[in-house]
Amino acid sequence: MKARTIALVGAGNVAVHLGKALAAAGHTIAAVCSRTPESRTALAAALSPATPVATPDFRNLDLDIVILAVPDAALAGVAAALQVQEGTMVVHTSGSQPLSLLDAVAGARTGVFYPLQTFSRAKPVDFNAIPMLVEAREEETLQELEQFARSISQQVQVVSSDARKQLHLAAVFACNFTNHLLGISREILQQANLPTNLLQPLLNETIAKASQFHPFTVQTGPAVRGDQNVLQEHLRLLQNQPRYQQLYQVLSESIGEVREFGS
Amino acid sequence: MKARTIALVGAGNVAVHLGKALAAAGHTIAAVCSRTPESRTALAAALSPATPVATPDFRNLDLDIVILAVPDAALAGVAAALQVQEGTMVVHTSGSQPLSLLDAVAGARTGVFYPLQTFSRAKPVDFNAIPMLVEAREEETLQELEQFARSISQQVQVVSSDARKQLHLAAVFACNFTNHLLGISREILQQANLPTNLLQPLLNETIAKASQFHPFTVQTGPAVRGDQNVLQEHLRLLQNQPRYQQLYQVLSESIGEVREFGS
Repeated sequence: MKARTIALVGAGNVAVHLGKALAAAGHTIAAVCSRTPESRTALAAALSPATPVATPDFRNLDLDIVILAVPDAALAGVAAALQVQEGTMVVHTSGSQPLSLLDAVAGARTGVFYPLQTFSRAKPVDFNAIPMLVEAREEETLQELEQFARSISQQVQVVSSDARKQLHLAAVFACNFTNHLLGISREILQQANLPTNLLQPLLNETIAKASQFHPFTVQTGPAVRGDQNVLQEHLRLLQNQPRYQQLYQVLSESIGEVREFGS
Repeated sequence: MKARTIALVGAGNVAVHLGKALAAAGHTIAAVCSRTPESRTALAAALSPATPVATPDFRNLDLDIVILAVPDAALAGVAAALQVQEGTMVVHTSGSQPLSLLDAVAGARTGVFYPLQTFSRAKPVDFNAIPMLVEAREEETLQELEQFARSISQQVQVVSSDARKQLHLAAVFACNFTNHLLGISREILQQANLPTNLLQPLLNETIAKASQFHPFTVQTGPAVRGDQNVLQEHLRLLQNQPRYQQLYQVLSESIGEVREFGS
């Protein structure tokens, strides 16, 4: 592995976990930049020998890579303020923002370095199992970035900005929406005074099966059976929760269409 | 453990897995009843010393328990045809059918014995981790049934028919609907030529987090952030799939309401 000298911009969950993984892999974090003094001081101390800095002006540092790990909404502003030596690689870590957002950074070779995972402050992370999605315009930059990504992850994937947008949409369905359904399910269990972990084995099996087969081919439940008795009874049970009733209806109709399509 | 003498009605996935677990726990499967000769013969052979029988007439057998493991739609018919010695315990294994469905069985003590899991023929099952939901009207029958359930599972739960109905509704949201969303997600990945397992780590983390916390409190994504730019862009990407666009809209609105409620 080629050890790199890195500056991190941002001190949130992504910056913290990524910084630790990079330091553990043998890279040098030379600087941590954050507007919040406590954040940059704390993260720099955790990533020795990093220096805390207040603004993203790295002209006096010999860096290989600057990693922008800031919220999506802050990214354009940071890119506009960023200053680096000619030829430094600058990457952002956002799943939803295009590579072109970094065109504003003068003299940099730009790329995307996106860890496809959700991070919680307290929970340690095994980067080895996290897909690292990389993108760059120039072939040489892309190869460097892939090599760099492989120093922390065994799952490195080149993904264009367009495909990354589709991936983000897929993630909203698979993760954000799924989480919401799990919340509704939990509410129903609580209202019936049932233990909230009761469905865990069934859910685990559902998730395991959906990774082995195309989920549409292993769909179970009243909607795919076209079981009108159960569907009507469930809509009745939800009569005081019109939003959940609507969700139930639309999801069941969508499942019904897959059934018709498949039959 | 008190070893029981059991007849199984049905030879589908539930009967097969349940029969094996009961035999392994030291109970005796005396008879396997199915209308299909091959099915009853095969399952009886696997559950030695069981005898295959064609009709559910068990008046000449000294049984402790008859387990009806047949499809929901067949249950009422089987209950009507079933004949047992006075005082035999008769239970069904359905999550969606009430205990009262067994009132038709003359002379029996009735109950529900519902394994909360989805079974595939080929995949072996560890019943120890499967919640067994039991119900009976008389206290003595209920205690017997609980004891019997504990012989194969460490998670035995007394659940009334009404609560079981709510549980089934909760399972539709947590499992059936989730599976459908995973199917949509997979379609999007395929259309973008992305590996279909790319979201697996993120999904696993989502599921793990949803079991530790109330999912509504750990919701992420554009809908909970109220990020109109991303929401509009995602709806645009789905413009050729009106059903998925509708699902995206309704699910995002529902998440938005949780956000408002929580703030």
